[in-house]
Amino acid sequence: ADVKKIAVIAGDGIGPEVVAEAIKVMKKTEEVFGYRFEFEHGLFGGIAIDEKGTPLPEETLEICKKSDAVLLGAVGGPKWDNNPKELRPETGLLGIRKALGLFSNIRPAVIFDCLKDASTLKPEVLEGTDLIVVRELTGGIYFGEKFRREGENGQEAVDTCVYNVAEVERIVRQAFDIARTRRKKLASVDKANVLETSRLWRETVNRIAPDYPDVELEHVLVDNCAMQLLRRPSSFDVIVTENMFGDILSDEAAMLTGSIGMLSSASLGEGAFGLYEPVHGSAPDIAGQGIANPVATILSVALMYRLTFGYHDAAEAIERAVKEVLDAGHRTGDIAVDKSKAIGTSAMGELIVNAI
Amino acid sequence: ADVKKIAVIAGDGIGPEVVAEAIKVMKKTEEVFGYRFEFEHGLFGGIAIDEKGTPLPEETLEICKKSDAVLLGAVGGPKWDNNPKELRPETGLLGIRKALGLFSNIRPAVIFDCLKDASTLKPEVLEGTDLIVVRELTGGIYFGEKFRREGENGQEAVDTCVYNVAEVERIVRQAFDIARTRRKKLASVDKANVLETSRLWRETVNRIAPDYPDVELEHVLVDNCAMQLLRRPSSFDVIVTENMFGDILSDEAAMLTGSIGMLSSASLGEGAFGLYEPVHGSAPDIAGQGIANPVATILSVALMYRLTFGYHDAAEAIERAVKEVLDAGHRTGDIAVDKSKAIGTSAMGELIVNAI
Ligand SMILES: CC(C)[C@H](C(=O)O)[C@@H](O)C(=O)O
Ligand SMILES: CC(C)[C@H](C(=O)O)[C@@H](O)C(=O)O
Repeated sequence: ADVKKIAVIAGDGIGPEVVAEAIKVMKKTEEVFGYRFEFEHGLFGGIAIDEKGTPLPEETLEICKKSDAVLLGAVGGPKWDNNPKELRPETGLLGIRKALGLFSNIRPAVIFDCLKDASTLKPEVLEGTDLIVVRELTGGIYFGEKFRREGENGQEAVDTCVYNVAEVERIVRQAFDIARTRRKKLASVDKANVLETSRLWRETVNRIAPDYPDVELEHVLVDNCAMQLLRRPSSFDVIVTENMFGDILSDEAAMLTGSIGMLSSASLGEGAFGLYEPVHGSAPDIAGQGIANPVATILSVALMYRLTFGYHDAAEAIERAVKEVLDAGHRTGDIAVDKSKAIGTSAMGELIVNAI
Repeated sequence: ADVKKIAVIAGDGIGPEVVAEAIKVMKKTEEVFGYRFEFEHGLFGGIAIDEKGTPLPEETLEICKKSDAVLLGAVGGPKWDNNPKELRPETGLLGIRKALGLFSNIRPAVIFDCLKDASTLKPEVLEGTDLIVVRELTGGIYFGEKFRREGENGQEAVDTCVYNVAEVERIVRQAFDIARTRRKKLASVDKANVLETSRLWRETVNRIAPDYPDVELEHVLVDNCAMQLLRRPSSFDVIVTENMFGDILSDEAAMLTGSIGMLSSASLGEGAFGLYEPVHGSAPDIAGQGIANPVATILSVALMYRLTFGYHDAAEAIERAVKEVLDAGHRTGDIAVDKSKAIGTSAMGELIVNAI
């Protein structure tokens, strides 16, 4: 097979530890399936601030741009939390999304059998929950003009939320396409009773909908969606929404599965290129101890194989291996009922590698 | 006692039915406690659109302005959903908040004993949950400039989120004051890692915090808050946040209690004046059938007595009466386990009146 270039940006906290296991998994799939990867590492986030004076060094961006996919660990930590804006890890995150044109963030929220009881929701409510949040990632209030000014009543701060029709259309079409491959239900979330951007959003969705007569569409107001996710999570299939609402709702959806340490995500642009990362953060409190759960990052590799490379055989092998290892009762500390029997990051990685 | 003027805007759907019961309760407290009320009714919402061509007629606003408190039922319904903006019930809602200077929305999210099992959360997670969301109500993206324009990539929509220091300070001080009367914990929710308005918000909170050394303060990012409400609802006491985040989080918090049909809310300005309404909507599907649950509206009266009038004896009597009637097993359809034994709106109102 042709060699695929993977940019690896391990980042901060537990990032390097979980990424190391994901790379072992990728190497195993080279052996087993004959795929070939070339890894190039880049500094990103807090570590890049420390070593290069910026969260997203030009070099790292170059590495990403000439790669076929990016594998990201996690960024951030208390060390950088009080830095000025340009020197904060999050600024790197927003920068890389914009620079790579990653306008779509895809977050499957699924229930793992072994974690059924980890949710704070009643099992009968959760039963059958399997949804994807498709979040617009390079527009809206995240990227609009922001500034301070003197107003009539003293200093004021301003954020601007902007969406154009093309930005809405591309993410909504992608969500419809994804819904088509699943249960064929799309919930479009907005606040059209208040926001102009939401009215543009809803008009655009309604204009596009006739192209997808096979997909059942509902419009849900964002406040109502926050409630319905709690009341009837299993009734959702694909949820599509703008950047800020997606940030909130995708975290709510992830938490209600009880599986947040196991969830993967993809950020996509035009074409097959994508950035893959676990949903969980850099967990600075347990960094460097070799006890972090690598499963979310390993499953992010499976997502990469499916969405960027079309390596469905290897993706399935990874997913099956994860299931097998969990079904056999192996647990890292975060998901262990009996903490004394918990295994470490590399032991978990090793078991999954061997199961492939 | 001096006569208190109450503006009654019953609104649409089940609004008139539940408000009628709340008024019976107020009249009973006139008899029992010697308080005196004068009620003046105003058209508002969909019915005002139909009869006056605007959701918030000038007359109604005048009635509210010369009253000591406003009792609101509910507004809206499918009939008006596709109207142009000026002819939508929500526009009236935003208009009345602004016109009356109601900058603070207070939403207690509490668990009712009789509804413990109605939540989709596990009882052990919910145990002890008793929180208040204090939402800024007249600023932020709700009231900033909104418009369409032609951009480089076709038509775009713009919403503007603006906050000045004074707006943040008054709501945050109010939240600190409320926390002082409770468990002395305040969670301030923002998105300071992305938004300029959130940075202004957080700076202001931090500047004010030293005036409240007895209140424990935490800053929580909005995405994280959406998760923590699910994970550890009982650890929150008072949550204060800006308008849009408050809209989402207060609905999430209400839903997780499982008691949404029973929750009341207050919208306050400077001074004692306030607007009181149930959290639930106008429920057009069951309107006019005499089966709606009046408890949330009746409890809104208790909130009015406490916050606007300082009638704590009557407030307590109402709350105790509600508890007594529920403990005796009486239920409206929405909260009945055995629907065949459900009682109607006025029967429930009557029982509560008699228990005062
Ligand atoms: C760190 C932050 C800027 C980021 C976001 O809000 O997008 C994070 O919450 C996420 O969801 O990836
Ligand atoms: C109807 C709508 C404009 C309103 C809001 O968003 O404020 C409602 O959701 C609420 O919370 O009172």
